[in-house]
Amino acid sequence: MISEFSIGKYLIFTSKKHNYLCVFCAGCRYVSKAAPKTQVECDYDGPAMKTQVPGPRSQELTKQLGEIQNVGAVNFFCNYNESRGNYLVDVDGNRMLDLYTQISSIPLGYNHPALIKLMAHPDNLSTIVNRPALGILPPGNFPEKLMESLLSVAPSGMTRVQTMACGSCSNENAYKAMFIWYRNKERGHNTPSAEDLSSCMVNQGPGCPDLSILSFMGGFHGRTLGCLATTHSKAIHKVDVPSLDWPIAPFPKLKYPLEEFARENAQEEARCLEEAEDQIVKWRHKGKPVAGIVIEPIQAEGGDNHASPEFFKSLRNIARKHGCAFHVDEVQTGGGCTGKFWAHEHWGMDDPGDIVSFSKKLLTGGFYHKNELQPYRIFNTWMGDPSKNLFLTEVLNVIRTENLLEEVTRSGKALLNGLYELQTQYPGILSRARGQGTFCAIDVCDDATRTSIILKARNKGVVLGGCGDRSIRFRPALVFKEYHVHLFLNIFNDVLAQHK
Amino acid sequence: MISEFSIGKYLIFTSKKHNYLCVFCAGCRYVSKAAPKTQVECDYDGPAMKTQVPGPRSQELTKQLGEIQNVGAVNFFCNYNESRGNYLVDVDGNRMLDLYTQISSIPLGYNHPALIKLMAHPDNLSTIVNRPALGILPPGNFPEKLMESLLSVAPSGMTRVQTMACGSCSNENAYKAMFIWYRNKERGHNTPSAEDLSSCMVNQGPGCPDLSILSFMGGFHGRTLGCLATTHSKAIHKVDVPSLDWPIAPFPKLKYPLEEFARENAQEEARCLEEAEDQIVKWRHKGKPVAGIVIEPIQAEGGDNHASPEFFKSLRNIARKHGCAFHVDEVQTGGGCTGKFWAHEHWGMDDPGDIVSFSKKLLTGGFYHKNELQPYRIFNTWMGDPSKNLFLTEVLNVIRTENLLEEVTRSGKALLNGLYELQTQYPGILSRARGQGTFCAIDVCDDATRTSIILKARNKGVVLGGCGDRSIRFRPALVFKEYHVHLFLNIFNDVLAQHK
Repeated sequence: MISEFSIGKYLIFTSKKHNYLCVFCAGCRYVSKAAPKTQVECDYDGPAMKTQVPGPRSQELTKQLGEIQNVGAVNFFCNYNESRGNYLVDVDGNRMLDLYTQISSIPLGYNHPALIKLMAHPDNLSTIVNRPALGILPPGNFPEKLMESLLSVAPSGMTRVQTMACGSCSNENAYKAMFIWYRNKERGHNTPSAEDLSSCMVNQGPGCPDLSILSFMGGFHGRTLGCLATTHSKAIHKVDVPSLDWPIAPFPKLKYPLEEFARENAQEEARCLEEAEDQIVKWRHKGKPVAGIVIEPIQAEGGDNHASPEFFKSLRNIARKHGCAFHVDEVQTGGGCTGKFWAHEHWGMDDPGDIVSFSKKLLTGGFYHKNELQPYRIFNTWMGDPSKNLFLTEVLNVIRTENLLEEVTRSGKALLNGLYELQTQYPGILSRARGQGTFCAIDVCDDATRTSIILKARNKGVVLGGCGDRSIRFRPALVFKEYHVHLFLNIFNDVLAQHK
Repeated sequence: MISEFSIGKYLIFTSKKHNYLCVFCAGCRYVSKAAPKTQVECDYDGPAMKTQVPGPRSQELTKQLGEIQNVGAVNFFCNYNESRGNYLVDVDGNRMLDLYTQISSIPLGYNHPALIKLMAHPDNLSTIVNRPALGILPPGNFPEKLMESLLSVAPSGMTRVQTMACGSCSNENAYKAMFIWYRNKERGHNTPSAEDLSSCMVNQGPGCPDLSILSFMGGFHGRTLGCLATTHSKAIHKVDVPSLDWPIAPFPKLKYPLEEFARENAQEEARCLEEAEDQIVKWRHKGKPVAGIVIEPIQAEGGDNHASPEFFKSLRNIARKHGCAFHVDEVQTGGGCTGKFWAHEHWGMDDPGDIVSFSKKLLTGGFYHKNELQPYRIFNTWMGDPSKNLFLTEVLNVIRTENLLEEVTRSGKALLNGLYELQTQYPGILSRARGQGTFCAIDVCDDATRTSIILKARNKGVVLGGCGDRSIRFRPALVFKEYHVHLFLNIFNDVLAQHK
């Protein structure tokens, strides 16, 4: 039996027998129950669990993969072919509502019809099969594709963008752009001296200058050596790897609910800003000036730590005052999940930064930058992947035609209100519910309880992820609607009730 | 008119009118001249030039792209849709024989039918559309696909592999694996102390240890900060970027022809080995022990610098003697272009290294490693891209069914012999012809002449690339046959004749 009903502008069809749900809306075709298996349905109508997770097939595959590589972090194995929309299907046939979306990297859910459809065009086959060295031999449609995709969502004040293969490469190269810019400023021109050129060949100054990047405790910017020197979220990311001695400032630790602690929180932010500025002065005197400041609009891996727009505005001013570049790392926050395309838009600034880096939901890595930070000498073989830009263009089309930013704002409110209710109901377990859009988090009393809650939720058909010491972070796709929120909250409530 | 002839096991069809050539062999379908445009032909029958390169359309697009990003390195814009086999077609309709193949990163030429065909299978669409976080939620077929692809060509003594997004990330993470391995060895166990964990959070020892990687002058291992500290090919890659103070040893500068300078070259290699060992001892005493040695089997970016198998065998022994890991960087040499799948196979060793990194022709980045170098804590969001493994599996199939390694050896001999002849003919311009397989190079009298030769060759329909101070490197695809060699040599001869 197929039932049909509508929520707002959506016409919804569900089939109990075939266990799927399809939302009929712009950019999303309805597929009748008679459609063959290979056709794409939009979404299922709820979780459906057959085994504990990981099930026997996942366990078997984990053993197999263990012969080839480290499997310490593997949760379970997936059937991506059968996954749809907000639902991740595993190899044991379990179907789970996914609020983690591959560490926040799937923008439109699984197998979105618009993306599948892209592959039908023969030009696109060639883009996927022939990966060019973009820095020397770009495809003819590259400027146009960049305009359609990345430039169409460029942060305020930025008209230039460089693509990269992943988030770490994006930040590494953004740091290099800031260092080169700073050295050019110091020299008063762009031409390195003979001494610069000879000394750098053996890793010495002045060619390899004693410059630094200021980062924040709790920040995460990647795990390659340069990025890792600015990452301070978990010791396990950093231990045993040589680093660079660079300054670190505290990130505000806000108290919740915000209304109640307005004064303390403002003081805390002022303290962090003062410390950041002190570090800049101190390191300049130490002969290791701060070329750039790197910060996330919301510290994600570090525990979903928020700060006020005023904090970021003041920090931006401190950067300007001291001649440091300001790098906003939107690898996890970018792409719409906060209800705006970039999280820094919530600051309401015309000039939010000099560099904005991205990856994950943008499908390609890269960074936007101000004209002055012309990343001359930023180069590698691939410099991104035009096949990812292709998918990004379509993702942006869907975001626009389906008004997904509004949807995220709506779902996010429902989610955060639900979390507020749950933390009132379970004060011994939950606290500090917080979020922007669907980019929400809640703290659990301790790490063991958090792990237990995440595993229990998974066995009831909800995929969640942790962050920081004891937070659960919510990172659904942009197609996560209000009814998915309620579906999730019901299951989450059941799990918590068992813990009470 | 279509003509048909055979070279060895190949049946060749050419059509003057339609300007293409098709080789009929296993894995490569012949397409008749009546085939529609969207079907894939295997190769063209020669270059065809319509304009100077860059032509007007390329120049127009360069201007457009210049509004968005730095175009200092852009050569021209390409029509990848129309490119076939060994021929790169640009946006002005110029068709060029490609001996540079996107900085040596295209294994089977452009639009190989076997790769295009892959996209027809619906399972593969899902692999391309849904990029997973491989470290936590791998697809069900991931162990099987790794076995079929990367493990089927694993270097001797290595059964484990970790994929990564690009060459730099591969090396960065390989270095981390060596550091962690070295610290575990120092501690006698794998568990960092409380002091390790707290000190690393602020980039200090002992958690961030004073360890180093020994690299070689002229080496290139990437441009992210960790890689860049081991890269010493060109100052312009390194200048203005802070670095790590790590040891550097000289790489042998061999004299050619090798037969004539056997004694001097052996002395030169002995000198470099002695210096490498001295550095290891010296840096241990300095309190910055060498955790690993990184080296390319042929220094590519640095100028196609070769060394003998004995050199590498001795260096491997030095690494073992001093407890350093031995990392063979095959990012540019791997994938068959030297006539063996890995260049280090020419050393004839059962135990060539502890780590072998790859990217480019392998389509995915990554590294193989010994069991002992279990890269625990090596992690990022994507950890590679299964859609690239998919194409790699097919590339390996084609290499096997078409005996491409034998073909490369055959073409390589013809190429090197041709280069020997040309340097005899033009002794004032060319010298030091050298190579393994088609991975060949020749030196030009000076940089200005090299640039002029490369540009003139391009206008006659041959794409070449430089490396080092004054070398031209040849990096054709694995489908570059003997008749392509002769075609190239004729054009190259014409260009040189103009310079005489």
